[in-house]
Amino acid sequence: MSAQEAGREPVGGGSEERVARAGLSRCVEPGDQAARWALEALGAPRLWELLKGSAPTEQEHSNFASVAEREMGVEPDGQLSERQQTGRALLAGLQRWLPRAVDAWPEQDMANAYQVNGGFLIPEDPHWPRALNVLGDAEPLGLWWRGPGLPAWGAEPSLSIVGTRDPSPYGVHITRQFTGQLASRGLCIVSGGAIGVDVLAHAAALEARDDGSTDCATLATVCVLAGGVDRLYPSSNGRLLKHLATKQLILSEYPPGSQPTRWRFLARNRLIAALSSGTLVIEGRWRSGSLSTAHHAAELGRWVGAVPGPITASTSEGPHRLIREGSAELVTRGEDVLAALGWNVQGTLDLGEPESERRPTDGLDEIEARLWESLPLSRAVEVNKLLGVAGVGAMEGLSALQRLRRKGMAEQREDGSWRRG
Amino acid sequence: MSAQEAGREPVGGGSEERVARAGLSRCVEPGDQAARWALEALGAPRLWELLKGSAPTEQEHSNFASVAEREMGVEPDGQLSERQQTGRALLAGLQRWLPRAVDAWPEQDMANAYQVNGGFLIPEDPHWPRALNVLGDAEPLGLWWRGPGLPAWGAEPSLSIVGTRDPSPYGVHITRQFTGQLASRGLCIVSGGAIGVDVLAHAAALEARDDGSTDCATLATVCVLAGGVDRLYPSSNGRLLKHLATKQLILSEYPPGSQPTRWRFLARNRLIAALSSGTLVIEGRWRSGSLSTAHHAAELGRWVGAVPGPITASTSEGPHRLIREGSAELVTRGEDVLAALGWNVQGTLDLGEPESERRPTDGLDEIEARLWESLPLSRAVEVNKLLGVAGVGAMEGLSALQRLRRKGMAEQREDGSWRRG
Repeated sequence: MSAQEAGREPVGGGSEERVARAGLSRCVEPGDQAARWALEALGAPRLWELLKGSAPTEQEHSNFASVAEREMGVEPDGQLSERQQTGRALLAGLQRWLPRAVDAWPEQDMANAYQVNGGFLIPEDPHWPRALNVLGDAEPLGLWWRGPGLPAWGAEPSLSIVGTRDPSPYGVHITRQFTGQLASRGLCIVSGGAIGVDVLAHAAALEARDDGSTDCATLATVCVLAGGVDRLYPSSNGRLLKHLATKQLILSEYPPGSQPTRWRFLARNRLIAALSSGTLVIEGRWRSGSLSTAHHAAELGRWVGAVPGPITASTSEGPHRLIREGSAELVTRGEDVLAALGWNVQGTLDLGEPESERRPTDGLDEIEARLWESLPLSRAVEVNKLLGVAGVGAMEGLSALQRLRRKGMAEQREDGSWRRG
Repeated sequence: MSAQEAGREPVGGGSEERVARAGLSRCVEPGDQAARWALEALGAPRLWELLKGSAPTEQEHSNFASVAEREMGVEPDGQLSERQQTGRALLAGLQRWLPRAVDAWPEQDMANAYQVNGGFLIPEDPHWPRALNVLGDAEPLGLWWRGPGLPAWGAEPSLSIVGTRDPSPYGVHITRQFTGQLASRGLCIVSGGAIGVDVLAHAAALEARDDGSTDCATLATVCVLAGGVDRLYPSSNGRLLKHLATKQLILSEYPPGSQPTRWRFLARNRLIAALSSGTLVIEGRWRSGSLSTAHHAAELGRWVGAVPGPITASTSEGPHRLIREGSAELVTRGEDVLAALGWNVQGTLDLGEPESERRPTDGLDEIEARLWESLPLSRAVEVNKLLGVAGVGAMEGLSALQRLRRKGMAEQREDGSWRRG
């Protein structure tokens, strides 16, 4: 993704749509269906007015109900109880969103993002990552960002690398190995900035690019947080996250100041899954959060890979579970990832078997192989004895021996006996 | 498999068919197609006569050609060259088999097998393992055996456990773990008696049954050798193989005195695959012989499992390769094997997730979970603040809090505030 000197100011300025979505991003949790219906029925600016105290009109209620009924698949002549349900959904939604709207000051949030060298991106912006469209109803209202600039999304391939917060020494090793190999091939590595595999992946991506400068052509890594971009959580990763905020890119759908919570981590995982062409799970326990990222990716039709490990390690339970379920492909090499995604960037793929595994009998037919294996290692053998040991007839055997001779694998001595070539 | 006091003598005595097949077993390598056609066209006794010097009649040539042409799919009005080819196949076969027939003395081989407490089994015997029928053209001519008796094949489930000759400490551990667990559930463990995983599996199966006596009801383990049953190869496993020969069962398709060779190991692997309902690969390099057993099993429609390991270990390349190819199911627990094969013997299966992985929020709906997670760990919180943090409306929130209260997961204090239950 080419980093661009895109708008230091909130791209497109503080339009009504942008301010409204910024405000809504504080009040509405991801996955709130009623909010999605209201957005379609009323538009973001009017929905934001309702949250600031305006009351919905009869017509707006009706518009909302139409969207809700269409989405729920309720027939126009449907059950009264179902129609009442959709009618109530807007009121229940407002009840959820209003308490937070009291404390929502989107212009201030946008100023705060600007203060930390960022902004607020909405779907109509040219720099919106189109990869998120795949989320449909679960697309975020907007993206708070922080970094030197916004990339030209999709220009270069990206891979999400996720895993446990508590990797084994093996997990640490393979995170570094995979990330380093793939980042040096030009892949942008997406992760969640958490301790453990996430932060190792970010760091290894940076190291592989050996940049540290802002004027590199492409992003090495993108971090998607579950709290505000001004709160570099967890603080133990503060130094690295600060570096990412300065030189790479940090994203969040929650406004500045937001606290990460368990459900926000889970919701955030869908963004990590959607932003990349594929997701690689390194290590994780049976119910690791990284499995939720993998499941999101699989549901979105994205490729998912998982790295196996010892069955005696609980940290490999997650990857093994994904592979057993058929949700993930077993991956042992960076080349497996590149091949699965059809990428072959900055270098040639070698997917053949290891050189060390080639055998002298490769390429021989069965008769030739049996004769060659029946030749003693250090002495010559009489031809009839050789044919008997190999269980090969004279006619087929003599011509196979000549073929072995031409390949330099067998030698006939003057007395007619044969030895290895 | 119930061990039986089946014929100490060659079962059914030294019939013409048995003697002929015993003789042929010395002359013909497995997979020799012409031998299979000749057997069908002429019968074992007559084929054996030909190998002892009799010449085939014109009619016998013609019978052989008919079988060969049918098997090769040659039309009766086919190309002359194809018909000539089948005509030549019998002569080429005789040329292969005759040199060995000179030294073949089947009655002596049968006496030798009897000497070591064994015999020679042919497909018409009631104790023939019917599981081998699946091999079709690759069914062995007969089985040389050694042990206290022959089992009632198929009465109890069996599993082949195979792997590298040079296991890692991890491989040693998991071979013992899987074999012990599965053998103690009553599975008969089939393997090849080689050093490494094979011998560990045999030994662990014996240990799991804790028998050592001949009067146990079922066999713990069966060993299929690639040489004669009188040659307990490799000699470094001599003590264990001798024990198996005395207390369990050793099989081979090669007559007493036969040397194992590389192609005989490979051919032997098809018997290991066919004898069991499934094959489990523990460890093996990229081109381990155990992969050939797995591929045979997969081709025969038998279940195949493979145990993953660290991607940094070359000993796990084989299992990973099988899983990536789709030839094997990834297996992490003995229960995976039992479930895959629909076995649930001597005990109840627990295929649920590990107890340690259960979470307090399991079984809660999303609103309940968000409220419970938003409750501080050690102090009470005012209800409106709680609803705001959780992003939950008053109506839906208050009823969810009541449900949490009834589950004992939340408590309301006298001042109306809430805390964890």
